[in-house]
Amino acid sequence: MALRTAFRGRAALSGLLSCSSHGRLSLSFISQRKNSTSPKIKVDYDQTTGVAVMRMQSPPVNSLSLDFLTEVCISLEKLEMDKGCRGIIITSNQPKVFSAGLDILEMYGKSPEHCGEFWKAVQEMWLKLYGSNMVTIAAINGSSPAGGCLMSLTCDYRIMADNPRYSIGLNETQLGIVAPFWFKDTMVNTVGHRNTEMALELGLLYKPAEALKIGLVDQLVPEDQVLTAATQTMTKWLAIPEHARQITKSMMRKPTIEKLRSNREADIQNFVNFITKESIQKSLRMYMEMLKQKKA
Amino acid sequence: MALRTAFRGRAALSGLLSCSSHGRLSLSFISQRKNSTSPKIKVDYDQTTGVAVMRMQSPPVNSLSLDFLTEVCISLEKLEMDKGCRGIIITSNQPKVFSAGLDILEMYGKSPEHCGEFWKAVQEMWLKLYGSNMVTIAAINGSSPAGGCLMSLTCDYRIMADNPRYSIGLNETQLGIVAPFWFKDTMVNTVGHRNTEMALELGLLYKPAEALKIGLVDQLVPEDQVLTAATQTMTKWLAIPEHARQITKSMMRKPTIEKLRSNREADIQNFVNFITKESIQKSLRMYMEMLKQKKA
Amino acid sequence: MALRTAFRGRAALSGLLSCSSHGRLSLSFISQRKNSTSPKIKVDYDQTTGVAVMRMQSPPVNSLSLDFLTEVCISLEKLEMDKGCRGIIITSNQPKVFSAGLDILEMYGKSPEHCGEFWKAVQEMWLKLYGSNMVTIAAINGSSPAGGCLMSLTCDYRIMADNPRYSIGLNETQLGIVAPFWFKDTMVNTVGHRNTEMALELGLLYKPAEALKIGLVDQLVPEDQVLTAATQTMTKWLAIPEHARQITKSMMRKPTIEKLRSNREADIQNFVNFITKESIQKSLRMYMEMLKQKKA
Repeated sequence: MALRTAFRGRAALSGLLSCSSHGRLSLSFISQRKNSTSPKIKVDYDQTTGVAVMRMQSPPVNSLSLDFLTEVCISLEKLEMDKGCRGIIITSNQPKVFSAGLDILEMYGKSPEHCGEFWKAVQEMWLKLYGSNMVTIAAINGSSPAGGCLMSLTCDYRIMADNPRYSIGLNETQLGIVAPFWFKDTMVNTVGHRNTEMALELGLLYKPAEALKIGLVDQLVPEDQVLTAATQTMTKWLAIPEHARQITKSMMRKPTIEKLRSNREADIQNFVNFITKESIQKSLRMYMEMLKQKKA
Repeated sequence: MALRTAFRGRAALSGLLSCSSHGRLSLSFISQRKNSTSPKIKVDYDQTTGVAVMRMQSPPVNSLSLDFLTEVCISLEKLEMDKGCRGIIITSNQPKVFSAGLDILEMYGKSPEHCGEFWKAVQEMWLKLYGSNMVTIAAINGSSPAGGCLMSLTCDYRIMADNPRYSIGLNETQLGIVAPFWFKDTMVNTVGHRNTEMALELGLLYKPAEALKIGLVDQLVPEDQVLTAATQTMTKWLAIPEHARQITKSMMRKPTIEKLRSNREADIQNFVNFITKESIQKSLRMYMEMLKQKKA
Repeated sequence: MALRTAFRGRAALSGLLSCSSHGRLSLSFISQRKNSTSPKIKVDYDQTTGVAVMRMQSPPVNSLSLDFLTEVCISLEKLEMDKGCRGIIITSNQPKVFSAGLDILEMYGKSPEHCGEFWKAVQEMWLKLYGSNMVTIAAINGSSPAGGCLMSLTCDYRIMADNPRYSIGLNETQLGIVAPFWFKDTMVNTVGHRNTEMALELGLLYKPAEALKIGLVDQLVPEDQVLTAATQTMTKWLAIPEHARQITKSMMRKPTIEKLRSNREADIQNFVNFITKESIQKSLRMYMEMLKQKKA
């Protein structure tokens, strides 16, 4: 039960067609992945304001690979330990996309051990972000399907570029896979039970205006003002007495976090059992072949 | 604590005045009920599309009698077992009403055993509909109070005729009775806690426009287009990978379903104790006499 | 973790600036509090309608002191025991303010025993109001921060004066303190999880129009019509069969009430531990000194 196949090529299927016309997209997919040593995350930390901007820069579409997730978690840990750092703005350095979600290559043709390790890293990122003591703001400057949407949902506030070519949503079902219970819980906490039921069953991707309407994002601004708006909002949040805000945040989110914490191993096992099924692997293969043919 | 007294005549009380001017209404009430052998449910199943249309045709107002409920459950079971059937549209063949809800004659002057059997059938219908693996769409082409509203709420999607003479809601309280916890849970899952609190305490019936506004229905269309719109929506839902959609639906609804499943006997006992009370039977009798006098 | 520091002077901090220009405000703060024997609550009970109007008249801003809370609870008990009394309208006799919330002087420089006794009284008021069998309507004819907002939230219906100088909200965080879980639960039941998360983390105070938009209040009327509107609404609610309405209300609110009931002692201990901390006492002192200097 559960998973997310963020992926370069999935863009085509999930309405991210604008991205798939981007040369690097298919290229990086068809070629071998390199275990690049260049950082996938760039953190600009301003000690005077106590605010860090975390820029995702893993071409082409900030797929959440195991390496990427590991980098995110290490960065978050460092910032969380720095007493001076009080807020994080998460944004993308890639054009047109915030993050395309989980990397399908981490779950196709991989050993159960690898899939399990990967899933554990996804859990870890969610736990660190959703439970962060810092103020977290998503500056969503591009499309944000599946795992990208999840990252946004973990934040305290979501500002999205008002560009109708972008979309956001937990669209796993569209790909034949299933958002796990903690993706679901995070969404229910944000947009309520009924909106979540519709969104997850249909794998809906929302245009910015629709996302604002159901509360999936909190604010729309022109594309070139996303980061500025995030910075302004951050100032407002940091003016709140910190200890009281942190205790309140924990009170709101703790039950949801504890639910995963006390079911982590079972959730990993569920994922591994599901994703290594012949039928699921086959549909992942067909999906990737479809993308190759599209390119050819 | 629970029950629903759908009923021919209750229409008068619950804003369905338009119905009570319908000759057959009072006639069928005053006369003895016949255990008709003509089917109360007509199912048109199109094997090429995999969609069944379930038409309720129990004059005058599709009251949910024990016979009616049994027929609904048998039809649902058959369709659920047919692997080719993937979606159901529920609609009414009676003019001006979708369903008036539970049949008061099944709980007035009846033995505790009969009341218990009746309530078990109501539970069974809810369990089958709310937990259905198929896509379920309510094509609400008339008023839909109480049990009729409950049937609608169990579906994946609700399309209502945009006719201000129709209304929908769980109006049990208006009749001096109480919606049980699983009616309440279903409504909370759809319109949230506060809307449900107001709706149930006041026994509110909503005009279509109001129902749309709070999310009690998902879409309004002109009266003659309800079925067409339902068919179009069905096509969209059936395009979603089926297995993933079913698992997701189950994830969303399972806790609510399990709550009734593990309390079924106690819920029946509650209902029987409540409905067989002298005071409640008296108010049911007064209610029916009021209707007779209205006619005389 | 919990508490509320309603208080004359806090008005300045929480957007109630209009109040702090009121001469009596700072006067009553700087001077010694007198254990006045004049009633802080005036109850007008109309036996013909079965409706009691509870007017809060504890100058200057209806702070919820231990004496005040005790009077409220005694009044509620009396009314609850009177079988003829079926509804209560809660309103303020003080200008511009409904209630400013918990009285900071009950928790500054007081013994742990006193703080515990005070907190128990806050719990008691909430339990009595949120679980009342009567119809309860808040006629919010002035600002209603923190504990004042909580009182409003316990009611069945909230009507607020449409005056943009007034505001309402659980703004504890702004003062460096934390709304306890049952304040939070009451708000989630009213405006949902996401609105509550934002409201509590930022300690938001809403103008009437904003409060209406998120559902924090149910209706806005011109200031001089608040009580009239409350009376009209009461008539509508009292027309509902009483027993069914009461059972339904209990069904909606019982889980939230039971959660506090079964954690009352621990919640008191949490409060006492938190509020008697050196750091919290210090910030309460600084806060009060800031108010004195403002006046000087």
